[in-house]
Amino acid sequence: MTQPNPAVMHGAQSAMAKLASRQTQFIFNEWYVAAMAGEVNRTLFKRTILGRSIVFFRTQAGEAVAMDDRCAHRSYPLSASTLDGDTIVCRYHGIRYDAEGNWIEVPSQEKCPKNTGVRSYKLIEQGALIWIWMGDKTAADTAHMPTQPWMVASEWARTNGAMHLKGNYVSLHENLMDLTHLTYLHADTIGTPDYAKAQFDVVLNEHEFILRRNVVPTKLPPVWGKPTGLEGSETAARIAQSRFVAPSLHEVSVTFYESTLPAETRPEFQIKTAHLVTPETHSSTHYFILHGRNFALEDTAIGEFMHENLFAAFNEDVVGLALVEDALERADDEFYEISIGSDRASVAMRRYLKMRADSERAE
Amino acid sequence: MTQPNPAVMHGAQSAMAKLASRQTQFIFNEWYVAAMAGEVNRTLFKRTILGRSIVFFRTQAGEAVAMDDRCAHRSYPLSASTLDGDTIVCRYHGIRYDAEGNWIEVPSQEKCPKNTGVRSYKLIEQGALIWIWMGDKTAADTAHMPTQPWMVASEWARTNGAMHLKGNYVSLHENLMDLTHLTYLHADTIGTPDYAKAQFDVVLNEHEFILRRNVVPTKLPPVWGKPTGLEGSETAARIAQSRFVAPSLHEVSVTFYESTLPAETRPEFQIKTAHLVTPETHSSTHYFILHGRNFALEDTAIGEFMHENLFAAFNEDVVGLALVEDALERADDEFYEISIGSDRASVAMRRYLKMRADSERAE
Amino acid sequence: MTQPNPAVMHGAQSAMAKLASRQTQFIFNEWYVAAMAGEVNRTLFKRTILGRSIVFFRTQAGEAVAMDDRCAHRSYPLSASTLDGDTIVCRYHGIRYDAEGNWIEVPSQEKCPKNTGVRSYKLIEQGALIWIWMGDKTAADTAHMPTQPWMVASEWARTNGAMHLKGNYVSLHENLMDLTHLTYLHADTIGTPDYAKAQFDVVLNEHEFILRRNVVPTKLPPVWGKPTGLEGSETAARIAQSRFVAPSLHEVSVTFYESTLPAETRPEFQIKTAHLVTPETHSSTHYFILHGRNFALEDTAIGEFMHENLFAAFNEDVVGLALVEDALERADDEFYEISIGSDRASVAMRRYLKMRADSERAE
Repeated sequence: MTQPNPAVMHGAQSAMAKLASRQTQFIFNEWYVAAMAGEVNRTLFKRTILGRSIVFFRTQAGEAVAMDDRCAHRSYPLSASTLDGDTIVCRYHGIRYDAEGNWIEVPSQEKCPKNTGVRSYKLIEQGALIWIWMGDKTAADTAHMPTQPWMVASEWARTNGAMHLKGNYVSLHENLMDLTHLTYLHADTIGTPDYAKAQFDVVLNEHEFILRRNVVPTKLPPVWGKPTGLEGSETAARIAQSRFVAPSLHEVSVTFYESTLPAETRPEFQIKTAHLVTPETHSSTHYFILHGRNFALEDTAIGEFMHENLFAAFNEDVVGLALVEDALERADDEFYEISIGSDRASVAMRRYLKMRADSERAE
Repeated sequence: MTQPNPAVMHGAQSAMAKLASRQTQFIFNEWYVAAMAGEVNRTLFKRTILGRSIVFFRTQAGEAVAMDDRCAHRSYPLSASTLDGDTIVCRYHGIRYDAEGNWIEVPSQEKCPKNTGVRSYKLIEQGALIWIWMGDKTAADTAHMPTQPWMVASEWARTNGAMHLKGNYVSLHENLMDLTHLTYLHADTIGTPDYAKAQFDVVLNEHEFILRRNVVPTKLPPVWGKPTGLEGSETAARIAQSRFVAPSLHEVSVTFYESTLPAETRPEFQIKTAHLVTPETHSSTHYFILHGRNFALEDTAIGEFMHENLFAAFNEDVVGLALVEDALERADDEFYEISIGSDRASVAMRRYLKMRADSERAE
Repeated sequence: MTQPNPAVMHGAQSAMAKLASRQTQFIFNEWYVAAMAGEVNRTLFKRTILGRSIVFFRTQAGEAVAMDDRCAHRSYPLSASTLDGDTIVCRYHGIRYDAEGNWIEVPSQEKCPKNTGVRSYKLIEQGALIWIWMGDKTAADTAHMPTQPWMVASEWARTNGAMHLKGNYVSLHENLMDLTHLTYLHADTIGTPDYAKAQFDVVLNEHEFILRRNVVPTKLPPVWGKPTGLEGSETAARIAQSRFVAPSLHEVSVTFYESTLPAETRPEFQIKTAHLVTPETHSSTHYFILHGRNFALEDTAIGEFMHENLFAAFNEDVVGLALVEDALERADDEFYEISIGSDRASVAMRRYLKMRADSERAE
């Protein structure tokens, strides 16, 4: 093009205005992964989540707790203070907080001011993960945790890890929703040339968005070919489903089998990946990953092989999305993006995220 | 707390709105320490003070002078130019300034434009320090220098030094005004466990604010125990006074003695520290320190011992206040701080600083 | 001066408001040097010009092409993608662009959206330089290239190079327009003490601005004295002309001769320098340089000697203008600059640049 077509540009910009982006407010009334269980122990630990600096520790009884990482008196970070039993003593003027964030001692005076302290957060530990409710603690929706059965069930073997993404969390969700990118961004790892052109279908529910892609027949890359024993076959099947579960969780499920065998008797291999998306700031994201398989449960070598190869691929996403973030940061008045057919689920998801953020803001 | 109490939050925010903070304008009609005397010599020297870039040198007659560090023609820094006798020749187009900042030569033309040059500043050198008046030079209040008698008197022995603080100057004043922090931030250096709980009283004058704390009986930390010979006593007295003298000066005076001896005959040891506070930017401060004692005047080893130990402690403040600054920078709409009883002098001082800044701005 | 004179300050500020500065919009309807010819080849190459990130490559037929460096789908940089023949395949989702920036393939669907792609740019290669038209490609003014005859003519020998300037492009134009700075900023390289005081005259045309300075008699610095054989003479002539040709080009021409010889028979030596000014951002500039001589055409040693000495001098400009940029960035409400007689051409040029930017913006 010699110049952007004004009609196309304005149309695209109108469409974009309805979608969540790096400018959109965070969604607070949600569960996010705050940390891996092993990260929270008897040493004060800090992490920024949805732009808030939060301090974590584990009580003597073993319960993980979290509160704002800033003394309510003169803003000294509690994470740079002292853990004393189940209390934190601010290292600046000695104000003591209980595990709920309440002031319980002010050394220079007899009584504590009432109703004073720092905001604390509801945490729930499930399997390898510690979840945090970023909204009002008393309104935490404990009945609807994002955790999926396979993430904790004994019928699945799991590995996990974490990466730091220099990009907005919406871009990561979008990346996961449209796996046509496997052919290009992951050409050297988990992608194959036929992936992008494979047939797909979309399911759009009220707050669940699914894109399912059937790559049949195909040749599996080693990361899946080796563990399933389908390496070498030119007629393998790779049925992939990207599912937006919550602002904090995107689940990718893939089934592999030999397509030339009868459906009733062929062995099927399933892997599932929980992409756990925790915004740090508007331009950075904590990216936790839980990967599961329903086969070779005891074979730790296979688990390690898949983990290593997968993380090499996820690192390609991290590098690529940082480049996208750079471009988005430089966006000017003429900035627009064009959506295509395979973005249908992702566009619906982004519209949902925007609606959630807007309705929270309206409250 | 599960959530901030809205009434407490709004109350605290209203109270904060009346206090100087990192958002408050600088106070220009004041004396600040610009430099240690030894820093200003026959080499051009630059320093940013209250956000202004200023160049200093000493004339051939030995007088320290200061002017804005930017050629009025095309903004080349004079500090990167040439000192020629008592003039500066801009290294860009050769415009020559006298020691008052006036243009006295433009090489490419015969005459200089009139009334042209850069703003110069009134400096006064007293003892180890060079003071600068940041307001209108002709209105410099030379009758009321912040210098205290002990800072230049021969009855006192002194050491001095300087640190760079990545924090706002108001936070440093506040830090000095409430020494309950000695027990916590300085637990490993100059603090003792009983300090924070010791009885204190407050004197609030029109533009002087004092907090006096009597720690009796106590055990002195080595930094004071050794030089006074009171090390080991469990019944020492430590009478500390924090006094806000001016936006540029906070004086801490401490008297030590053996509390079990009769008041008339017991030896008393006094130390005084001038904490010289010169804002660099809204988030950084030049922190000059002059420390004096009225005993062991000739004993340089004692002077060095105290200086070294004190600077280790002041460095803890510098590190801690940088953490506070980080927290303040991230303040959002829900940000508030709660004051306590021992903040009474500090709150009055911050109200005074705000009033001074506001009234200057109103002019 | 003790304080800025309010009348002088306001007068200067009013005058400044009419001149282009680092706050002024870029001028897009212009030719700029995008790259040296050798920089653009069969590897994707990116450069920011007038704040836009642009990707370059050379087609298989050898033609240099340029387009916006951001996929119109989801903003992945094309420069981090794959060059495939004369097309770029986005590394994210495989969208393929032709050399004009049009979408020609979307792998996940059969048809491409119409009128979609990224903006492409008109390039013209002349000699060592590739020029880019930053405005509407179809409106590129190919009849008025800034290239001057000597920049490509065989009667001239040339060397070239490039530097990166941490400063606004207007400052560089101004630097070039008033060479009185040679005596000061270049005292150690190409300046001589008499340069700043030499007689000059000014020609102001509609969009051409010239300052001509006659330094006669003078002693040439080695950079010119050696190549011309005039080294040692105290009566050399150095006739320098600074000419603003376009926002992207400032030409400096200098003639040297022995002033005591008769005008009709004396040998004259001419050098010309094209200072090619391509704004990168509002605070940085690509500074390309083409240097020519009309003597000793075959003597590469002389060419290298002059090139090396000149670049040492131009580096002094780059260092000095970065200091000026720092000062300009800190400008507050009281900021002003005073112009002098030798700024007359430069002030006219800056007024012209402002008028150009404003009229583009008005469109």
